[in-house]
Amino acid sequence: MIIIMKPDASKEAVKKVTDLIESKGLRAHLSEGTQVTIVGVVGDKTLLADSNLELAEGVEKIVPVTESYKLVNKKFHPNPSYISVGNAVIGPDTLTIMAGPCAIESSKQLLDTAIAVKKAGAAILRGGAYKPRTSPYSFQGLEEEGLKYMKEAREATGLAVICEVTSLHALETAAKYVDMIQIGARNMQNFELLKEAGKSGLPVLLKRGLAATIDEWLNAAEYIISEGNPNIVLCERGIRTYETSTRNTLDLSAVPVIRRKSHLPVIVDPSHATGVREYVAPLSKAAVAAGADGLMIEVHPCPACALSDGPQSLTFDDFEKLTAELKPYAKLAGRKF
Amino acid sequence: MIIIMKPDASKEAVKKVTDLIESKGLRAHLSEGTQVTIVGVVGDKTLLADSNLELAEGVEKIVPVTESYKLVNKKFHPNPSYISVGNAVIGPDTLTIMAGPCAIESSKQLLDTAIAVKKAGAAILRGGAYKPRTSPYSFQGLEEEGLKYMKEAREATGLAVICEVTSLHALETAAKYVDMIQIGARNMQNFELLKEAGKSGLPVLLKRGLAATIDEWLNAAEYIISEGNPNIVLCERGIRTYETSTRNTLDLSAVPVIRRKSHLPVIVDPSHATGVREYVAPLSKAAVAAGADGLMIEVHPCPACALSDGPQSLTFDDFEKLTAELKPYAKLAGRKF
Amino acid sequence: MIIIMKPDASKEAVKKVTDLIESKGLRAHLSEGTQVTIVGVVGDKTLLADSNLELAEGVEKIVPVTESYKLVNKKFHPNPSYISVGNAVIGPDTLTIMAGPCAIESSKQLLDTAIAVKKAGAAILRGGAYKPRTSPYSFQGLEEEGLKYMKEAREATGLAVICEVTSLHALETAAKYVDMIQIGARNMQNFELLKEAGKSGLPVLLKRGLAATIDEWLNAAEYIISEGNPNIVLCERGIRTYETSTRNTLDLSAVPVIRRKSHLPVIVDPSHATGVREYVAPLSKAAVAAGADGLMIEVHPCPACALSDGPQSLTFDDFEKLTAELKPYAKLAGRKF
Amino acid sequence: MIIIMKPDASKEAVKKVTDLIESKGLRAHLSEGTQVTIVGVVGDKTLLADSNLELAEGVEKIVPVTESYKLVNKKFHPNPSYISVGNAVIGPDTLTIMAGPCAIESSKQLLDTAIAVKKAGAAILRGGAYKPRTSPYSFQGLEEEGLKYMKEAREATGLAVICEVTSLHALETAAKYVDMIQIGARNMQNFELLKEAGKSGLPVLLKRGLAATIDEWLNAAEYIISEGNPNIVLCERGIRTYETSTRNTLDLSAVPVIRRKSHLPVIVDPSHATGVREYVAPLSKAAVAAGADGLMIEVHPCPACALSDGPQSLTFDDFEKLTAELKPYAKLAGRKF
Repeated sequence: MIIIMKPDASKEAVKKVTDLIESKGLRAHLSEGTQVTIVGVVGDKTLLADSNLELAEGVEKIVPVTESYKLVNKKFHPNPSYISVGNAVIGPDTLTIMAGPCAIESSKQLLDTAIAVKKAGAAILRGGAYKPRTSPYSFQGLEEEGLKYMKEAREATGLAVICEVTSLHALETAAKYVDMIQIGARNMQNFELLKEAGKSGLPVLLKRGLAATIDEWLNAAEYIISEGNPNIVLCERGIRTYETSTRNTLDLSAVPVIRRKSHLPVIVDPSHATGVREYVAPLSKAAVAAGADGLMIEVHPCPACALSDGPQSLTFDDFEKLTAELKPYAKLAGRKF
Repeated sequence: MIIIMKPDASKEAVKKVTDLIESKGLRAHLSEGTQVTIVGVVGDKTLLADSNLELAEGVEKIVPVTESYKLVNKKFHPNPSYISVGNAVIGPDTLTIMAGPCAIESSKQLLDTAIAVKKAGAAILRGGAYKPRTSPYSFQGLEEEGLKYMKEAREATGLAVICEVTSLHALETAAKYVDMIQIGARNMQNFELLKEAGKSGLPVLLKRGLAATIDEWLNAAEYIISEGNPNIVLCERGIRTYETSTRNTLDLSAVPVIRRKSHLPVIVDPSHATGVREYVAPLSKAAVAAGADGLMIEVHPCPACALSDGPQSLTFDDFEKLTAELKPYAKLAGRKF
Repeated sequence: MIIIMKPDASKEAVKKVTDLIESKGLRAHLSEGTQVTIVGVVGDKTLLADSNLELAEGVEKIVPVTESYKLVNKKFHPNPSYISVGNAVIGPDTLTIMAGPCAIESSKQLLDTAIAVKKAGAAILRGGAYKPRTSPYSFQGLEEEGLKYMKEAREATGLAVICEVTSLHALETAAKYVDMIQIGARNMQNFELLKEAGKSGLPVLLKRGLAATIDEWLNAAEYIISEGNPNIVLCERGIRTYETSTRNTLDLSAVPVIRRKSHLPVIVDPSHATGVREYVAPLSKAAVAAGADGLMIEVHPCPACALSDGPQSLTFDDFEKLTAELKPYAKLAGRKF
Repeated sequence: MIIIMKPDASKEAVKKVTDLIESKGLRAHLSEGTQVTIVGVVGDKTLLADSNLELAEGVEKIVPVTESYKLVNKKFHPNPSYISVGNAVIGPDTLTIMAGPCAIESSKQLLDTAIAVKKAGAAILRGGAYKPRTSPYSFQGLEEEGLKYMKEAREATGLAVICEVTSLHALETAAKYVDMIQIGARNMQNFELLKEAGKSGLPVLLKRGLAATIDEWLNAAEYIISEGNPNIVLCERGIRTYETSTRNTLDLSAVPVIRRKSHLPVIVDPSHATGVREYVAPLSKAAVAAGADGLMIEVHPCPACALSDGPQSLTFDDFEKLTAELKPYAKLAGRKF
């Protein structure tokens, strides 16, 4: 931690700051510039957490030097993590595809989709049973009934299954039926839910919040891992910007940035990011080329009949065509698929 | 709802769209332009909710004409609402000030603050017992113990009290101690929590999400009101932008926009929006001048000792000076204070 | 300037950095932390401008300590500036209102407006002769003919006049007719134009760029002042965000932020910021309450007939009503008007 | 164009609107809904440009149906354009790489780079002679001297050369030395410069503005093409968002969006978008996979010695390694390289 003093800070003000630092058992290094004085803090800065040094007389600003997340930080865990979900392993050797409908609508819809996406190469079946919807008057999901269809589809196909949870109650229920839970963009800072997901020990897909920085996202993952659950996969799904020709702006730079900062796998969801079916294929390829460990793609037997997010869903044929096209990209990236 | 067809849409495609609309018992109005054909839908568009018209052949895009929120919409409830919280009434006749510490730290800290802010003119005491914090290693709040201090402060001063709730459990607990609950920016789309807040019947302060549009915010309020609870106050607290000289960008335009779209009261929180103490006073005055029904301001007996958000907190003296300065602005705005 | 080394930086790497700093005649202060080493640079950091220290082995990042703008910086010029424009003086004692049509359309339109806005209290007449328009097929302005009408209106009313310039040619021409030139949001980083505006010596109204940080804005002003022209007034006019219910998001926090960082006056343009007539009045009052030195407001004899930006223009009656309402706000802010 | 009336609009108000439309020789189609009335306008809407229909009594809002750009619009020119620059042809069959230093520093620096990038597969040499810099105290470029080095490098290597122009003067000068001019992000709406670039007839690389929507970008291109110059290549270079771990947020979705809306080629600049050398390679591959027609990449003989943007520049070895890795991606995309 570095403390930058104001240009007109008095010697007394500087001394008060260094005294405060030393009173906590830390060391203060002074660097007196021609315009400003800088104080470096040496030692465990959490000892200063309650000191509000920003408010001390003569202090201009505080610059943190180390990240606030630890267990998900690559600095302390340099090798990439492998996360097992059912028979799938998400990590640097594989391109893992999660596919399925935005919302589960019926047993048949889900099972048909499961069979189709498995055939095309998906390793994990996705499907929403609890739908977070902007308006209370939109379809909210089949809830536990949908989870039962998930379990049936898993048994029938051997695919691992993932479902979003939007509350502690949904988390408890889903734990009985699925292999992996998803925490969606709107709940990325629902800290209660993150902690419970941590306690559950289940693999967690943590989507980036709509306006979350990468550091906030990694701190959200830290909530899960600090409860003892290291089974976390991150998912970039677009951030909110002023551009309106896509639903969100897919931030593919997040893939190499996460790779540099964390050991956790990161996948990409081009369906929600763009909201437009014809952009899913080019951005899926781009994600693999950027180094993503997997993709989450919406597939529906009849997008025009879907109760939720039809416009961005692929048909079975679209999806099969896409996975065929992705194979050489996976190979170039050194990934099995 | 208006359906804009593609320039090359065939007559058959247009007919399929109008047939679909009419099959749901609605009427379709055709408008054939020189370049494109437009189809207007007359009737209750929710009957089309599951139709995914965007995907029909030849459709370019769908333009919604009416808002998805109803009960909070000014169109259907033209007069402004008055929300009672303890002895306070939030609405067009009054400037209601909510003040107190970011986090409750002790019985004495809270009680001292309650006495000071009451003396300076605040009507409601705020204080955080459940703190949503970016890092799991930051102070998370005193929880129920803090709520007990809240109740004590209410009994001692007669002030109404408000506390943020971050989970269903916190909501249930808080309901026993406080007059109004706050749903914070990070939980604005925690729909489970919104529904429960609706069922509780308690007055709710609904903060705008960090990247929420005003329409999404009003839809979040619709979640609460559609459960039968009309006691909602909105709070603008800054949105996330690229500018870094303030913590967030306070969107004061939201005040007249909400006034035009909804009958609900709207207040402003300049403390969280800016994150900088010296900007709180000018933006408080600006909020009142823009038409806000109230303010939420952080006050702490010793900001430099605060466990959370010290840099933006006012001292008792600062706050007393501010409320004195606000009086003529309230008067100009036609509000008692 | 502070250099933060990587956690695994070798002693040799640190030595190379300090040697480089000292080879330029500066001093390097070492601060060895438990996790990272920090190097403070003492002396004139511009001597290091070409060194690309970010790329030296072992360097994690560079933190600048002082701002890159000097002459507009309050640190080196603590008292607020007063800028004279014709008979008007923009500064801390006065509320200066600039009003007029978005685009100049005819001699009569401009003169009628000049008379009306002068009567209502405006000190400066605005009007666009060179219009930057998103589409090449939109009305682009009357150019020099419009400037002549400006001069006529000035002679007839005694008002000072301001016009936007969008090119060196427009700047040269406008210099013959107007008292103040405006550099618009789209040209805030048209550095050639900024330098020429600096050389002209004319008072300059510098609007904030659509996505400019406050620091970039002040650096743009530094381009003008560093050519010897200190006659600069800043104008906040809304920034681009994801919110669509207003054209841009008016960042009123910019007013106190500029006040803290610079001695230059700052005014606010609520017409362009919101794009909606009925939001102009509440945000004008808010701007004055936040401490703005003036306002720029669009007024048109017949907004429904305007060739440009009619929806946000006030009628003469609207404007007269607004200035009447602003008087007590100006008085509260300690400003003549 | 569609006009949505307010729920309480009177019959007279609707009639006035339709009368106005018909008075311009257009046709108005009425669609009376249960809540609102909608008026479709049939005919050439530019006839209504000066009518400010938004302001007519009873009008809620106007929804445009057709884009304001015409000549760059794919609807009116369905086949992709091929743009010749020296010996290079930018278009669907080729991956065109533009590479070179951010700023031209010396004849030797530029020539060495030209030879290295040609060897590695670049078709066009880039180099900045006029540098738009945030601060007036940063290095501003060698100007015409730099352009002479450009011409030398072209003669020595046969590469086509491109240079950014920041003013009409720079454009005139550059036209004597280079094969293609670049209009940078900060000048994307410098309409004077766009028009002159249009008149010059030279191939133009038009970078996307920092906060420009894709529609504004295409309208900027329309300024060039409407002056008779169809030789335009678009360049996505990152947009401004709240995320700070990269300099800007690269919006790769822009590639398929442009492909859908326009016939112009689009390339990607991952160097400026990220500002970080190690992110250039993964995002270059991603851009090719997303369908980009080319890349613009910064290369410098000694990034640590660069006068501008060293941190994002590749060394010759880095660049050679990158182009080797890009070859199979180009092949997958069906492009020669």
